[in-house]
Amino acid sequence: MPATTTLDLRQLRRAFHRYPEPGWREFYTTAKLVEEVESIGVDELAVGPEAYDPADRMAAPDPEDVRPWMDRAVERGADGDLVEAMAGGNTGLVAVLDRGEGPHVGVRVDIDALYVEESAADDHVPAREGFRSEVDETMHACGHDAHMTWGLAVLDAVKRSDFSGRLTVFFQPAEEVSGGGHPMAESEYATGLDYLFAAHVGLDHPTGEVVAGIERILAMCHVDATFEGTSAHAGKAPNEGDNAMQALGTAIQNAYAIPRHADGMTRVNVGVAESGTASNVVAEEATIHGEARGETTELMEYVKGKLSTTLESAAEMHGCDAHVDVVSESPRVDSDPELARVVADVAGGVDGVETVRTHADFGASEDATFLMGRAQEAGGLATYLVVGTDHPTSHHTSTFDVDERSLPIGVEVLTNAVLSAGETT
Amino acid sequence: MPATTTLDLRQLRRAFHRYPEPGWREFYTTAKLVEEVESIGVDELAVGPEAYDPADRMAAPDPEDVRPWMDRAVERGADGDLVEAMAGGNTGLVAVLDRGEGPHVGVRVDIDALYVEESAADDHVPAREGFRSEVDETMHACGHDAHMTWGLAVLDAVKRSDFSGRLTVFFQPAEEVSGGGHPMAESEYATGLDYLFAAHVGLDHPTGEVVAGIERILAMCHVDATFEGTSAHAGKAPNEGDNAMQALGTAIQNAYAIPRHADGMTRVNVGVAESGTASNVVAEEATIHGEARGETTELMEYVKGKLSTTLESAAEMHGCDAHVDVVSESPRVDSDPELARVVADVAGGVDGVETVRTHADFGASEDATFLMGRAQEAGGLATYLVVGTDHPTSHHTSTFDVDERSLPIGVEVLTNAVLSAGETT
Amino acid sequence: MPATTTLDLRQLRRAFHRYPEPGWREFYTTAKLVEEVESIGVDELAVGPEAYDPADRMAAPDPEDVRPWMDRAVERGADGDLVEAMAGGNTGLVAVLDRGEGPHVGVRVDIDALYVEESAADDHVPAREGFRSEVDETMHACGHDAHMTWGLAVLDAVKRSDFSGRLTVFFQPAEEVSGGGHPMAESEYATGLDYLFAAHVGLDHPTGEVVAGIERILAMCHVDATFEGTSAHAGKAPNEGDNAMQALGTAIQNAYAIPRHADGMTRVNVGVAESGTASNVVAEEATIHGEARGETTELMEYVKGKLSTTLESAAEMHGCDAHVDVVSESPRVDSDPELARVVADVAGGVDGVETVRTHADFGASEDATFLMGRAQEAGGLATYLVVGTDHPTSHHTSTFDVDERSLPIGVEVLTNAVLSAGETT
Amino acid sequence: MPATTTLDLRQLRRAFHRYPEPGWREFYTTAKLVEEVESIGVDELAVGPEAYDPADRMAAPDPEDVRPWMDRAVERGADGDLVEAMAGGNTGLVAVLDRGEGPHVGVRVDIDALYVEESAADDHVPAREGFRSEVDETMHACGHDAHMTWGLAVLDAVKRSDFSGRLTVFFQPAEEVSGGGHPMAESEYATGLDYLFAAHVGLDHPTGEVVAGIERILAMCHVDATFEGTSAHAGKAPNEGDNAMQALGTAIQNAYAIPRHADGMTRVNVGVAESGTASNVVAEEATIHGEARGETTELMEYVKGKLSTTLESAAEMHGCDAHVDVVSESPRVDSDPELARVVADVAGGVDGVETVRTHADFGASEDATFLMGRAQEAGGLATYLVVGTDHPTSHHTSTFDVDERSLPIGVEVLTNAVLSAGETT
Repeated sequence: MPATTTLDLRQLRRAFHRYPEPGWREFYTTAKLVEEVESIGVDELAVGPEAYDPADRMAAPDPEDVRPWMDRAVERGADGDLVEAMAGGNTGLVAVLDRGEGPHVGVRVDIDALYVEESAADDHVPAREGFRSEVDETMHACGHDAHMTWGLAVLDAVKRSDFSGRLTVFFQPAEEVSGGGHPMAESEYATGLDYLFAAHVGLDHPTGEVVAGIERILAMCHVDATFEGTSAHAGKAPNEGDNAMQALGTAIQNAYAIPRHADGMTRVNVGVAESGTASNVVAEEATIHGEARGETTELMEYVKGKLSTTLESAAEMHGCDAHVDVVSESPRVDSDPELARVVADVAGGVDGVETVRTHADFGASEDATFLMGRAQEAGGLATYLVVGTDHPTSHHTSTFDVDERSLPIGVEVLTNAVLSAGETT
Repeated sequence: MPATTTLDLRQLRRAFHRYPEPGWREFYTTAKLVEEVESIGVDELAVGPEAYDPADRMAAPDPEDVRPWMDRAVERGADGDLVEAMAGGNTGLVAVLDRGEGPHVGVRVDIDALYVEESAADDHVPAREGFRSEVDETMHACGHDAHMTWGLAVLDAVKRSDFSGRLTVFFQPAEEVSGGGHPMAESEYATGLDYLFAAHVGLDHPTGEVVAGIERILAMCHVDATFEGTSAHAGKAPNEGDNAMQALGTAIQNAYAIPRHADGMTRVNVGVAESGTASNVVAEEATIHGEARGETTELMEYVKGKLSTTLESAAEMHGCDAHVDVVSESPRVDSDPELARVVADVAGGVDGVETVRTHADFGASEDATFLMGRAQEAGGLATYLVVGTDHPTSHHTSTFDVDERSLPIGVEVLTNAVLSAGETT
Repeated sequence: MPATTTLDLRQLRRAFHRYPEPGWREFYTTAKLVEEVESIGVDELAVGPEAYDPADRMAAPDPEDVRPWMDRAVERGADGDLVEAMAGGNTGLVAVLDRGEGPHVGVRVDIDALYVEESAADDHVPAREGFRSEVDETMHACGHDAHMTWGLAVLDAVKRSDFSGRLTVFFQPAEEVSGGGHPMAESEYATGLDYLFAAHVGLDHPTGEVVAGIERILAMCHVDATFEGTSAHAGKAPNEGDNAMQALGTAIQNAYAIPRHADGMTRVNVGVAESGTASNVVAEEATIHGEARGETTELMEYVKGKLSTTLESAAEMHGCDAHVDVVSESPRVDSDPELARVVADVAGGVDGVETVRTHADFGASEDATFLMGRAQEAGGLATYLVVGTDHPTSHHTSTFDVDERSLPIGVEVLTNAVLSAGETT
Repeated sequence: MPATTTLDLRQLRRAFHRYPEPGWREFYTTAKLVEEVESIGVDELAVGPEAYDPADRMAAPDPEDVRPWMDRAVERGADGDLVEAMAGGNTGLVAVLDRGEGPHVGVRVDIDALYVEESAADDHVPAREGFRSEVDETMHACGHDAHMTWGLAVLDAVKRSDFSGRLTVFFQPAEEVSGGGHPMAESEYATGLDYLFAAHVGLDHPTGEVVAGIERILAMCHVDATFEGTSAHAGKAPNEGDNAMQALGTAIQNAYAIPRHADGMTRVNVGVAESGTASNVVAEEATIHGEARGETTELMEYVKGKLSTTLESAAEMHGCDAHVDVVSESPRVDSDPELARVVADVAGGVDGVETVRTHADFGASEDATFLMGRAQEAGGLATYLVVGTDHPTSHHTSTFDVDERSLPIGVEVLTNAVLSAGETT
């Protein structure tokens, strides 16, 4: 007797899709989720600063930068008091069903969008069917609209079931900047998790395929750096400058040359760099956005340490001050095979599922690992599962889309996994 | 019997100051100058494409980029047909007085502004006295508003004199990007110049000081470069990228390391660089704005050649395509001491002039050298003179200002120099 | 009935130890081995150019450079004709027992020494017991003296056994420079190998431990590069130089920055670099000795290709000619688990063996992979086994030493493996 | 009545030429000079540590390194006690004539040779006429053999004259490494110099030409650096290394990119670099020999400071220790025109002199500037003069030679300049 939801999944997903908000700016999105959660009815509901300690946030924004997003959310109809409670960018929420004895089961979905201008082409379904993003240069281009839909529907379905125990659904903000995983994992709501399911749609797996447990989610950190030097006229007195451009060049070259490590795979990237104001001026400032990854958290730390040294020495060499900031990071965590088996078992019985893979490699990073790690450290089990979807183009592109057949599949796999975990104990 | 002008110098200068337009965008400015020149009455007046061949322009803009500036000029009251005749950014004008037998004397003033947001502080005169820039992030921060005023007043004063010969005043656009000097120098209006006076206000010389002939105006070129590589996910497949960021780092480091030259002073700068879109993406593209200078044109060419090789090899090393473009350049030219002596002689008799320096070093570059060189090649004489002004802060800053006492001084020095040159022959 | 040898293993090993010769210079060593092999008595014996085609050698030396080693070998008592037959550095030999029907079994041992000055300290056994290297700055610091002893003793023991088939022992020169593996593998003696055993002593495994099959022997190549520029006086005319030093700096930085690869582990190193003649001279020449490695042969090829491009572009950028030469390389090959099992089985019964490990990672490179690959390509099986030894310090150091208890262990493991392989078929 | 010498100039020069010794190794050369000076007869003679304080030496050698040169000097016939008194490399001497009232006049000649293997070709005069260098890879390839001859002959001629005053001839060691100028200038013998003549032969000026006063002798310093890192196996554990090779690459690239200076000409060079021991080892050490120059001493100091920072930051970036050592330096000093005029005047009357140039640019460096500066600081005058010679190839090459017609010219110019200076006062 699988539990079912009465929510209109397609309509929900499209409503979320229409109004995408980037990390730490999900004011309207959070308000909409609160409304839906309240309509379902839960035992506990914590929004923003109630759900986590804002000081635990990573990649937290400048409060002034998010203010326009607050205004727009209110303009669009979000409750003003609710939005104000999230001032400074404390978005996201946690919803809890407390249903008697039984295990504490967590489900984590993420809610933020990307700075991508959505395609208006006719063969792009959201454009053709009228639910294209209404926010300039912002788009749900990674399927988090589907994830939120899953989160709500799982709440609804589990509530309608005979589930016994505690179900916590984490609607996590700011995944794309590795910002929200950490505060969610540090919160009291993440205490005593026996089981934690994190889920993603797509990732190059087709509709009908489910991966029960993702492995090798790389440890990662984002590093921002600014070099502050001294400007000078490049023709009249180049010697009077402390050239941030030269510091930048030295930093780029040496960052990529950080030695490979005996213990496994490492990665380093200087993804964005900018310096200077005019061709005839010695550059006063340079900014860098980079990242370090590792097959293990230790390896990421190794690269991060070397990267910091490289940036600082490059600045020093050219008489500049370096401000190096690790804006966010996430650890390496793997899915527990035992819990993946639970997912695999229930997935086999879900309508529309044709292929069940017990595990697959990830090769990239995800801050769901914070919650997974929190569960595992407390003796619980965690898995990161993928519900395939036929996506026409890559994640993060303007023509990304979700095959909506994967909406009910995801709901059913997650719901049954929650129920099955509940019974397992 | 010094010739005099009846123009209101202060009012003119402030009118120009109020509406600054950057290089190749001086639509309203040109229209205003045309109006004033017509009111003075001249024998020939050539605007934009009539004054020079647009194909000779350097650092010419994308026609679409200048369109908004055309629209705003018309909105402000410029004649629509006149503005349309300058479409694509063919701004500037040449005005000629043809007064019988005598030498061909040229005066060159420049008319463009800078992308600088003007100070609104109370101690900044234009703000306090109500003629601050009305254009966002644009400002006459190098005194070209004074130069235009001089140009008009010299025309007026010479017209009122008994000058015999031909006087051509070049109102040159786009000096700041070394864009307008070349087409002006190539035009028929620059033919047979016996004397050419170029003039600048300030340059760290105080009010009351005149420098009769600037020397060592460095040869210079602006170089733009783009590296086109291949994007890739920095975590999943860094090897699939052709990393424009690495090409950039290599280019910066090696550009500054271009060997010094036995024959004299050289300069190289990478003033602006940008690359990449996100910290986790291998950068597909990088852009560079740089420059090369030399004490002689040959030395500049040496650095320019080395810089091109450096940029191209850096791109090639990292599998990128390099597009290297010399967007503009200007030669080394020195003032002729004979003509500087003429200036020095008349300057000594000008009211308000306390110090006359026969020559001074420049240390930077100026595309007036094109017109100076044209005159010299044809057997004429040229000088670049400076009329000092007490400017509170450096040129190109938001609080730069001109001491308006230097307006009449400049007019009188230039007018008398023109007349004196006319008599010399 | 294990076959046994009557050779004095310790005496043999010490004799080899006393007179170490580096790769392609093993003239006396080869002569000594020939003498021992002849004393054992074999069916075929091929020395130097008879054993392989000299053109197949890698990292082959300049014939003049090896001449002093030939002279010294003769001085020490080697047969002059034999040494002359190896002129140009065609050292090493192959010995064959042809004993009726049965498989073709190969054993590969290496014979070259290293440019290391052996310790004369009292706690260094060879010094204390009087068999320290008699050759300046040359030492058997990697245990090849033990390997040769094993090779001879296996020949002797198998000859005394009832082995049926063909046993070929490859006494391979120039392993340390990856020079001798390739010609040995290309020779007719490597035809139709059903089983190939390569063996090494130590490698951080203690006395009493045997590793039956080494895995992940990295593919590797050695790359030499020379940059030829133009010298100039650094004070008077730096611009007249084409600075090989700058090309070197650019090459080093960019070589280490070759992107990591999605498919697995890669390595790159610039191990030796030299440039210039005097502090006041622009360097005319630079030389580099580097290497590239990969977890697979394809990955090594990827790094090798990038390294070549890097070196060539660095030279081009600075007006130098680059000569890039891949002096030697070896592929990735793994031990066959089936053959490793044979080794593990016999090792378990050998006196003194306490621990048998079926497999272990190598992490470095070895040109035994050429012979292993030759066997595998022909349908045979190959394994690279390690016989542990308590070595006081790392391989390649001046105080490296072999625990001589590992001599009989190695002989017995190898002999029994050969016999067991013979019976398996 | 010009004073004359009875010395056989050609024989002396050839004797010096036959036995060249590099800087701080001029043991035999000093002994030979002492012998000649004693034969002339002087009032004071100070050798090595008597002539200067050894602690003032620059680029002083390791005492052990010079010992073989001491032994060879004694073998060749130098007095053993005298050589021993110079132990550690305290070579060179000062000879003084004290002749009553009058000015203190100094003459400075240098005595060291270069590490160049002299040509044995028939068209090389020293080879053909039998006075080619008898020391391997060492040669008087810069004419110091002629300078010493001048120094002795001037002593002799002045002694035979009616000169009144004090004449000090500085036979300075180690000019080529900028090592001996400083201690000579700091010594008591350099006290109260009224006139100082330093002289050089050749420098691209032909026989018959004399340059009376060299200008723009660049300030210079030699900088040695060592980077100490940590070795590691490049395949097994590159992360365990602190790679001196990477530090070297970073240092080279950034050294050449030290910004040009507004105040004048600067130079920087990394002339020699070495790092690493084997292609598969992360380099533990790197050594650099570099130099900095400037048109003024301040400009040299600017480059020297930047170079030190660059080297230190490059080392730090790669976890290495940097040892940066300014081994020697010399200041910018110009000839005094008044004293040059004295030289020009006497030179005009010397037999064989066809052209007298009052001044010329040098473009390189010379540690004679220490003595020149000492004289000038005390209120005296100094000049650096050139006596032209037809040299077949550049200084510092294996086929450099001196046209011996310039020997008497040099003696006469210097002698008469000394006498003329004496009379001037």
